[in-house]
Amino acid sequence: MRNSVILSSGMHVPEQVYTNQYFNDLLGEDVDTWLRENVQIYERRWCNEEESVADLCVAAAEKALAEGDLKATDLDLLIIATDTPEYISPSTASKVQHRLGAVNAGTFDVNTACAGFVTALDIASKYIRSDEQYNKVMIIGAYAMSKYLNMQDKKTVTLFADGAAAFVLGADTSDSGKGFLASELTTKGEYADWMGIYAGATKTPTTAAVVAENDHKLKILQRFPSELNPEMWSQLALNLCKRVGVEPHQVDHFFLTQININSIQATMDRLGLPMSKTTTVMHNYGYTGSACIPMAYEKAKKNGKIKEGDLVMFIGSGGGLSFGAVAFRL
Amino acid sequence: MRNSVILSSGMHVPEQVYTNQYFNDLLGEDVDTWLRENVQIYERRWCNEEESVADLCVAAAEKALAEGDLKATDLDLLIIATDTPEYISPSTASKVQHRLGAVNAGTFDVNTACAGFVTALDIASKYIRSDEQYNKVMIIGAYAMSKYLNMQDKKTVTLFADGAAAFVLGADTSDSGKGFLASELTTKGEYADWMGIYAGATKTPTTAAVVAENDHKLKILQRFPSELNPEMWSQLALNLCKRVGVEPHQVDHFFLTQININSIQATMDRLGLPMSKTTTVMHNYGYTGSACIPMAYEKAKKNGKIKEGDLVMFIGSGGGLSFGAVAFRL
Repeated sequence: MRNSVILSSGMHVPEQVYTNQYFNDLLGEDVDTWLRENVQIYERRWCNEEESVADLCVAAAEKALAEGDLKATDLDLLIIATDTPEYISPSTASKVQHRLGAVNAGTFDVNTACAGFVTALDIASKYIRSDEQYNKVMIIGAYAMSKYLNMQDKKTVTLFADGAAAFVLGADTSDSGKGFLASELTTKGEYADWMGIYAGATKTPTTAAVVAENDHKLKILQRFPSELNPEMWSQLALNLCKRVGVEPHQVDHFFLTQININSIQATMDRLGLPMSKTTTVMHNYGYTGSACIPMAYEKAKKNGKIKEGDLVMFIGSGGGLSFGAVAFRL
Repeated sequence: MRNSVILSSGMHVPEQVYTNQYFNDLLGEDVDTWLRENVQIYERRWCNEEESVADLCVAAAEKALAEGDLKATDLDLLIIATDTPEYISPSTASKVQHRLGAVNAGTFDVNTACAGFVTALDIASKYIRSDEQYNKVMIIGAYAMSKYLNMQDKKTVTLFADGAAAFVLGADTSDSGKGFLASELTTKGEYADWMGIYAGATKTPTTAAVVAENDHKLKILQRFPSELNPEMWSQLALNLCKRVGVEPHQVDHFFLTQININSIQATMDRLGLPMSKTTTVMHNYGYTGSACIPMAYEKAKKNGKIKEGDLVMFIGSGGGLSFGAVAFRL
């Protein structure tokens, strides 16, 4: 039985730091107090004018390859999860494939908003488990949402930020018990029109009027019920526990979408688990969408919070609303 | 052993027909002669102002469900392959899930330009083959490129058009020999900057200047070598033949990307096979990108060109350049 295991990983964020003070000045009001006290965001990174999402992907990919002592030509498949692509078409993955020199890798992008990385982890695992052509698969969660922000929109501009992180997954045929254990994807499409980038595609093509109105920018049209993510995330965790055959306390670490630290706290509360069993990165990076879950993994790895043999869960949600959950034995 | 089989399919195109005469008038020159004589395109369908890609998807999906006597709630997963999405974010699939009422389906979009449908066919097959949660998976190839066309660009406006087609794939545990046999994905990322929609994402965000210059529209920046698709498609066909253990003449039907009938002819020539072993749809539909391969399948099915037990190959290419090839036993 072939299984999908995490071989290595890496992340990259732009150099340019934007503190909360920048937004106080930009918006002409104190947003820092709310950001610090309510969502624990202190600073974030944004691409500069010359940077875009492919740059973040290439840098994260190179770190993941280096950590695994791998060459780009070792990769059989490259999947990029993003809803802030390099171009509308072709895929960001094709561009990154060329820049990396990953000439043996098939490529595609996955868009399921901020659930994209977990979904890509599920897809990549299925390639490795079911097709012997796939021995090394790279997945990248990438986000350059700064490019789609309306600088006058307090609800979005203070939260969303840029970053990328990559995993290299490999095929393990040793029956080690390591690697992919279970997954679940679910969608509540009734929320598709609540948050998104609604103009610039086929429903509302870009026009001068669209640009004048900033309709091509990210919009939060309705506020999601605060209980929605904790309910869904904890239920997904319980579902995975059942499939894996463990109790929640036997899970060593959770990597959850970093949109709001209160949702993470509420999820851990529902599971009866301490915050020490999860890692948060919004403090210094803001909300980095499809990149935030592997960025949290990088932080946990760096801080020695996870080790070989640990049972971990990646649980993400994003616009759509789409949800993905994957359990791995490290 | 679980395998992925095609249970049913359906297609939809917009009502509005644009003949070559429309483009003679639009461009003020005779483009009809070249289109008829060189690429055998006579007419195509475009969305009207109120239509967009999700409308095409929902209509195609409903036909596929009806043909299979299935309900939307039967679907475990919905994958939409498109590079002309409903929104930039969230996914087109989340919107379509809600409109269909496919409440039990996880969702994501795949973007690998016009290789998207074949790639989605590969992904969906891997879900079905490797995870018992997935018994009914819908994939849709969808294209509303009319929304991204520069009406003054003769190279694109005369060729590209709109449509969608859906497959429902099911799990077969009967060891019937039917269903998915082999696949290959490959990418030549060195061509990523040759054809695409380059502004409107993170590399070149939309601005008033971008709109004024029509940079947010589809552009062909360099002409692809005419031998590239025939070389790649015939090689992919031979690779799949080898994996399946057959000679090319034992393949009953080929479904190839419909960008240029001459590429299809040259591919069949290289394989030493007659044009009767393939089906073309560009004559009445123009080039419909990620939708064209399942649209060709629909035509072949309707015309009795394929039957149970046939060995068929789906081979697609698209911007990136990305290539996908899948062999199925019907």
